[in-house]
Amino acid sequence: MRMYDLILKKRNGEELTSEEINYFIENYTNSNIPDYQASALLMAIYFQKMNKRETADLTMAMAHSGDVLDLSAIDGIKVDKHSTGGVGDTTTLILGPMVAALGIPVAKMSGRGLGHTGGTIDKLEAFKGFSVEMSEEDFIENVNKIKLVVGGQTGNLAPADKKIYALRDVTATVDNISLIASSIMSKKIASGADCIVLDVKVGEGAFMKNKESAFELAEEMVAIGKSVGRNTVAVISDMDQPLGLAIGNALEVKEAIDTLKGEGPEDLYELCLTLGSHMVVLAGKAKDDKEARDMLIETVKSGRALEKLKEFVKAQGGDESSIDDTEKLSKAEFIIPVKADKDGFIRKIHAEKIGIIAAELGAGRATKEDIIDLSVGIVLAKKRGEQVNKGDVLAYVHANDKEKGEKVVGGILNNYEIASEFSNDIPLVYGIVR
Amino acid sequence: MRMYDLILKKRNGEELTSEEINYFIENYTNSNIPDYQASALLMAIYFQKMNKRETADLTMAMAHSGDVLDLSAIDGIKVDKHSTGGVGDTTTLILGPMVAALGIPVAKMSGRGLGHTGGTIDKLEAFKGFSVEMSEEDFIENVNKIKLVVGGQTGNLAPADKKIYALRDVTATVDNISLIASSIMSKKIASGADCIVLDVKVGEGAFMKNKESAFELAEEMVAIGKSVGRNTVAVISDMDQPLGLAIGNALEVKEAIDTLKGEGPEDLYELCLTLGSHMVVLAGKAKDDKEARDMLIETVKSGRALEKLKEFVKAQGGDESSIDDTEKLSKAEFIIPVKADKDGFIRKIHAEKIGIIAAELGAGRATKEDIIDLSVGIVLAKKRGEQVNKGDVLAYVHANDKEKGEKVVGGILNNYEIASEFSNDIPLVYGIVR
Repeated sequence: MRMYDLILKKRNGEELTSEEINYFIENYTNSNIPDYQASALLMAIYFQKMNKRETADLTMAMAHSGDVLDLSAIDGIKVDKHSTGGVGDTTTLILGPMVAALGIPVAKMSGRGLGHTGGTIDKLEAFKGFSVEMSEEDFIENVNKIKLVVGGQTGNLAPADKKIYALRDVTATVDNISLIASSIMSKKIASGADCIVLDVKVGEGAFMKNKESAFELAEEMVAIGKSVGRNTVAVISDMDQPLGLAIGNALEVKEAIDTLKGEGPEDLYELCLTLGSHMVVLAGKAKDDKEARDMLIETVKSGRALEKLKEFVKAQGGDESSIDDTEKLSKAEFIIPVKADKDGFIRKIHAEKIGIIAAELGAGRATKEDIIDLSVGIVLAKKRGEQVNKGDVLAYVHANDKEKGEKVVGGILNNYEIASEFSNDIPLVYGIVR
Repeated sequence: MRMYDLILKKRNGEELTSEEINYFIENYTNSNIPDYQASALLMAIYFQKMNKRETADLTMAMAHSGDVLDLSAIDGIKVDKHSTGGVGDTTTLILGPMVAALGIPVAKMSGRGLGHTGGTIDKLEAFKGFSVEMSEEDFIENVNKIKLVVGGQTGNLAPADKKIYALRDVTATVDNISLIASSIMSKKIASGADCIVLDVKVGEGAFMKNKESAFELAEEMVAIGKSVGRNTVAVISDMDQPLGLAIGNALEVKEAIDTLKGEGPEDLYELCLTLGSHMVVLAGKAKDDKEARDMLIETVKSGRALEKLKEFVKAQGGDESSIDDTEKLSKAEFIIPVKADKDGFIRKIHAEKIGIIAAELGAGRATKEDIIDLSVGIVLAKKRGEQVNKGDVLAYVHANDKEKGEKVVGGILNNYEIASEFSNDIPLVYGIVR
């Protein structure tokens, strides 16, 4: 088999066989195939697409290119949740305790944030002492005992995907549905999940900018999941404005705690119930979404989910006392209001731009090596559809550098679109693909 | 400027600016742009094409990526001829002396053969002692004195094209009209020609397999030539069967000598007159093709062209006595006939396959490092359209290894298609683009 022939075949619009896809992934992973041939193939795939069979084959080849976690020692059906990435997305911190409180094992491998989207590990580190470093044995023991664990991604999980993603990133071959879908699914499959709930974000602050492409991606991923024996459900949700109110690590942790206390923002709580109910159904703990939803609401009302969060934070070395007393979470020195400069209705809050501004404040990283400031960020006071008067506070900047904080006020204001008439036709959840 | 943006732009079907094309060529030549980005761009170009302006810009950027020969010291208008490569194409050896005999300077940089197509330098080395190594001064002096010189390609002529061609060759991005046209034209322009006559071969033994793509390539190259001030004419000629009768280095030299003596194969002589007449017109020595053609025929009839060949071979150190006595050219030990296995009319002679068989005999190279045997090859006895009876000789194998020679007989026979009815609707010249 020659890589040249694979490129030519795909360039000419032909289907690659399973053997050819395996050959590519195996030999690219071990560097027998040079980058310049891989990038030519990726560009050919961009133009000629891959069908469902090819995409599933690519996914499994990438999933098996490195370690595949064996979670068989964990009791029960393991359901993983994955978000395609958004701004102010605190769902994992809320969903994890809720679902675990129902006795469903949640064993998550998570990453750090990059660019305008945050990472779960960064957020959890807002609990002093919290660590994701642990042995495989402790990881399994934790989840069996308290049903919830978050570990750092191991170095050798789907290395082919890592290598291919890095190449796509510099060769303008990122935005192809098959390549995106197989990248996400290969990591989830290598992480050992039995079932997967996907949160496919759509809108300005998401990777998928429109509804059509988000549904297309969701369908592609659900098809992959099914064809490789992992029951998968995708929720297509809005990322045209930030989710919830908080953007920034400790700020989002506080928001998650508030939500588990029943005092969180409505959209965030609602999305958690939607995603969570699918997790509960896939885990076989409820017969339908409605029953699962009621069970999840009960974990909040009873305080069981909040207790689960405490147990979890403590088990991974974090200071769980800051859950009851959120004043203990790291806090920024300056809180600067952003005020409306006219009367009207909020029509848009440009999520990606707001995310970038929060990152610039120190809440996110531009490069992997950057050190983030856990305490800084933005807390929205008004969201889409709300009426405001000139002088009303739209948002608060949390900063440790006053000058830096004041500098971003104008930027945040610019990213609030205030119209004279009310209009809010964007739903929180566009639909479910299963 | 970032290479990533150029890839994205072309991928999305947008036009690249002159500055962007120059940026790519300059930075790829000096290795500031990695191969994997270049191959992604080339694949994007394959799918999205380049327009005439982009193609002309790419050509000039590649032409100027290294040395550009200054032939201003040569008296008169320098007309270069270039063939896209075929089997048994001996035109340069015939055309050069004919045109030079009319006082038109022919200063050729030539290459060696690779694969199933031969190279002019290899052929000329069939004259014992012949050398293409010479100083630039001697090169200029030779052409001013005798009007004909063939030099080896210098190392730094259009290095960008060399690098890009090598990359296209392994990434399935060779067959794009703009890339092919700019590759050919950049070398011709860097070689310093004032005017260019292109012989675009079409058919099984050529790079362009059908008439439409050959005309498309011809039009693209003529447009490039015009837009950069080099008057260019393209002749689209048949390569569905080998040109002339001889395939192999010394065998083709003998055929060239025969042709200059007025005793060569008709198709080869006719194509030389067609190509040559355009060279004469472009050089301003005749008012039209008809007049040019008559002048060229006269150089053969008068023996002036043959004398010119002798002068030229002698000037470059070759044994010119083998022109009068072709028995002195290196000869193979065994001549093995290939006989028809049935009666009928020859409908096809698969040129590429015949070329590959000749190369396998030792007449051509599989890799640059291979050493060729100048004496071996194939001489056709019958060509398309001719009637044969079972047992008639179709061709002769010239070999130095009897076993090897006998082994290819079956292969040659297989590549002669003999039909029961006469049919020969393929012209020698499909048309002229100017």
